[in-house]
Amino acid sequence: MRRMLPLLLLPALLWSGCGEPVPGDSATNQSGLNQLVRAGLDDTYAYDLLGDLCTTVGPRLAGSPGYERAVVWAQEAMRRAGCDSVWVEPVTVPHWTRGREWGRVLGPVPFDLDLCALGLSDGTGDGEVEAEILAVRDFDELERRADEAAGKIVLFNPPWEGYGKTVRYRVGGASAAARHGAVACLICSVTDRSLGAPHTGMMRYADDAPRIPIAAVTVENADRLFRMAGRGMNPRVRLHLEAANHEDVTNFNVIGEIRGSEAPEEIILVAGHLDSWDVGTGASDDGTGVTLALAAARLQLQQDRRPRRTIRVVFYACEEMGGFGGRAYLEAHRQELDRHVLVMESDGGGFAPRGFSVQADSTVVARVAELAAPLARIAPDHWSVGPGGSGVDVGPLAAAGVPGIGHHVDGSGYFALHHSRADTYDKVDPDEMARNTAAIAGLIYSVDHLPERLLPPRAAGGNP
Amino acid sequence: MRRMLPLLLLPALLWSGCGEPVPGDSATNQSGLNQLVRAGLDDTYAYDLLGDLCTTVGPRLAGSPGYERAVVWAQEAMRRAGCDSVWVEPVTVPHWTRGREWGRVLGPVPFDLDLCALGLSDGTGDGEVEAEILAVRDFDELERRADEAAGKIVLFNPPWEGYGKTVRYRVGGASAAARHGAVACLICSVTDRSLGAPHTGMMRYADDAPRIPIAAVTVENADRLFRMAGRGMNPRVRLHLEAANHEDVTNFNVIGEIRGSEAPEEIILVAGHLDSWDVGTGASDDGTGVTLALAAARLQLQQDRRPRRTIRVVFYACEEMGGFGGRAYLEAHRQELDRHVLVMESDGGGFAPRGFSVQADSTVVARVAELAAPLARIAPDHWSVGPGGSGVDVGPLAAAGVPGIGHHVDGSGYFALHHSRADTYDKVDPDEMARNTAAIAGLIYSVDHLPERLLPPRAAGGNP
Repeated sequence: MRRMLPLLLLPALLWSGCGEPVPGDSATNQSGLNQLVRAGLDDTYAYDLLGDLCTTVGPRLAGSPGYERAVVWAQEAMRRAGCDSVWVEPVTVPHWTRGREWGRVLGPVPFDLDLCALGLSDGTGDGEVEAEILAVRDFDELERRADEAAGKIVLFNPPWEGYGKTVRYRVGGASAAARHGAVACLICSVTDRSLGAPHTGMMRYADDAPRIPIAAVTVENADRLFRMAGRGMNPRVRLHLEAANHEDVTNFNVIGEIRGSEAPEEIILVAGHLDSWDVGTGASDDGTGVTLALAAARLQLQQDRRPRRTIRVVFYACEEMGGFGGRAYLEAHRQELDRHVLVMESDGGGFAPRGFSVQADSTVVARVAELAAPLARIAPDHWSVGPGGSGVDVGPLAAAGVPGIGHHVDGSGYFALHHSRADTYDKVDPDEMARNTAAIAGLIYSVDHLPERLLPPRAAGGNP
Repeated sequence: MRRMLPLLLLPALLWSGCGEPVPGDSATNQSGLNQLVRAGLDDTYAYDLLGDLCTTVGPRLAGSPGYERAVVWAQEAMRRAGCDSVWVEPVTVPHWTRGREWGRVLGPVPFDLDLCALGLSDGTGDGEVEAEILAVRDFDELERRADEAAGKIVLFNPPWEGYGKTVRYRVGGASAAARHGAVACLICSVTDRSLGAPHTGMMRYADDAPRIPIAAVTVENADRLFRMAGRGMNPRVRLHLEAANHEDVTNFNVIGEIRGSEAPEEIILVAGHLDSWDVGTGASDDGTGVTLALAAARLQLQQDRRPRRTIRVVFYACEEMGGFGGRAYLEAHRQELDRHVLVMESDGGGFAPRGFSVQADSTVVARVAELAAPLARIAPDHWSVGPGGSGVDVGPLAAAGVPGIGHHVDGSGYFALHHSRADTYDKVDPDEMARNTAAIAGLIYSVDHLPERLLPPRAAGGNP
């Protein structure tokens, strides 16, 4: 993942042939789209801006000083990118702090654990927790061995079955273990690959179980503890976790607008989330999302053009610890839901583009697929537009009836970085960022130049 | 690197066809070789033994309690594998301890560094070192900016140009920086890929420079520090390194022998190094080497066979901090060098087999290539036998005239693990270990069944 020179030349060359017709659009718009996409494929704006974010701000956990720095940075970035107005909107967010943390296997063979507390987990209080490990593969094995759990630290070491399935241990592991009397819980980091870094992420306490602390250990450590237990070595572990939950605090969504020239009351919203975990620098989750959103919006201003509709760029607060930014935006803007033509989010990294998913009824899905078709050359052999989710932050808007779009990229390397100290700028490729800028900008452009809306206002729900 | 079920069935099936003729050998030996290789392809011995080493012993830095545990473990393993005699031989080794260590960027944006001191580096003494970073790409840039180095912590952030070239910064970075007045040195971890773990390894102090402490930071941290410096942010860093050099201590090479039935005075030596770095569990460096050596030797005893010559298995001490085990063996056995028919080492991991390199004159290289040719089916499309090095530990024997062989594997993933906390058992594949067992065992078998030696005794040098 250490790379040599950016290969920015190739995509622009690929684009140099004449374009396919843009459906439902004039020859002028088709030429405008081609020009915009060509500019996007040469555009290092998102990549450079991401470098600035990761270097000068770094991690930005909700409720932390890092998030406050990020809000200042984001407003400045939006102004420089050419937004006509920039403002912030309050979001009440949980305030969780990690503090210091360590773990140690005391015996029979001692070694230090590489671990990190999960977000929203309680810590070990004033002192430490020390107990033997009960190592189980999964929830089923815990149920079978429930009578062994009391007073133990339960370790879940499930096989990787994809993020959606394996993440259940991160979210629900602590309460499952606590129901059987465990004093703490460890999970194998939720990742398909590991080179020695633990992966954090949000957990939840169930109402029907005691609150016990939970941390992720590295795949390497989980594997060794599991093998020790399997050999009857009964690993004894001491945990010191200063993680703590405090009173909620106020953070801010950051919003910038490029006012539309013809229908300024109609809004195309493009978004990512500004917050990140406190490990790494939140480059792919979701620095790429916010910088791509701003770069794609900025590109609409190329060559003295101005979008017909208003482009609203939203950097959401606190996606990672509960999606609070997205819900706060919905509440604050419920009265103007009808003004939203489209909401789009990028939250899977800035890897090679793969297309879009559309959270709307099938006629809108078909229409977006048609509009996005000319962009398929940006990702030859890998382009796909179909029904699917939009994003954690824009999802509430989509659920309320606004057409929602999720930006898709090659996710094969994502979970190796996700929520770990490896989620950093060196993993991001300038060429891939440029191609994503072109794809997102191109879709915005095409939707913006539609004479009609994707969905008539009344159908979009909300209060007219 | 988390894996599902071992795929042990396939190679044995691939081998089930009739074999190519074994050159210079009888039909009986050819049939014996085929039988041995088939058994090797089904053999989980090395893989299981490695699991035992990584689980019950763990890391085993020279001079540490871990190495002492490993010596006890190794003797027991050799006895169980069927060695007729097992003994240890003393090796004087450096005694270096890591202690606790941390680093922190104090500003202008504060964050913790993920680092590890390099082996044999001094620490920061009684206290800490605090200074601004001078970030340079390479030695040339340091020379150009030499007048900026005084009082600074020099960070080398060279591009990856292959291990052999990039490792120069690890070995010589501290003294290069100290010559210009630097107070400490940091290097980017020597690896082609990173997911957030620092990589240690041996450094050396030059005689003409002050001794300053040196540590490796992760690729991620090096990249960020380098970008901060490039933006004039002048990162200020505090280092606390308890690393310390102490009086030399005595460790032991561990040696086991399977006595030959026909020419017991002739020795085929097969080896790996028992010591590892103190991070990870030394699975691929070089747990795979020692367990493959023992498994391949043990396989010569299959089905009541006994090798014609003596098979000597050596687990060397302290390869990582200066190759002391290999040199001590040469000194202790100089009088019996003529008895060594062949010395072979595996020290590149247990990945998919690729063949062998031969450190000897061209007639021996050709002879070994011929003997190993029937084994090529173990690694179809990837087999190569040619001139090259043998190994750090057996190299002194090869330099003294004994034919030396290096065991080669697919090295594409090796440096991502090398000397880091990611060098663990979960990265090792049982099928690949079995194929390597078969390859090494097959070559030993073929050399053992040669009526003549690879090289006449006199030509092998040493004192007769």
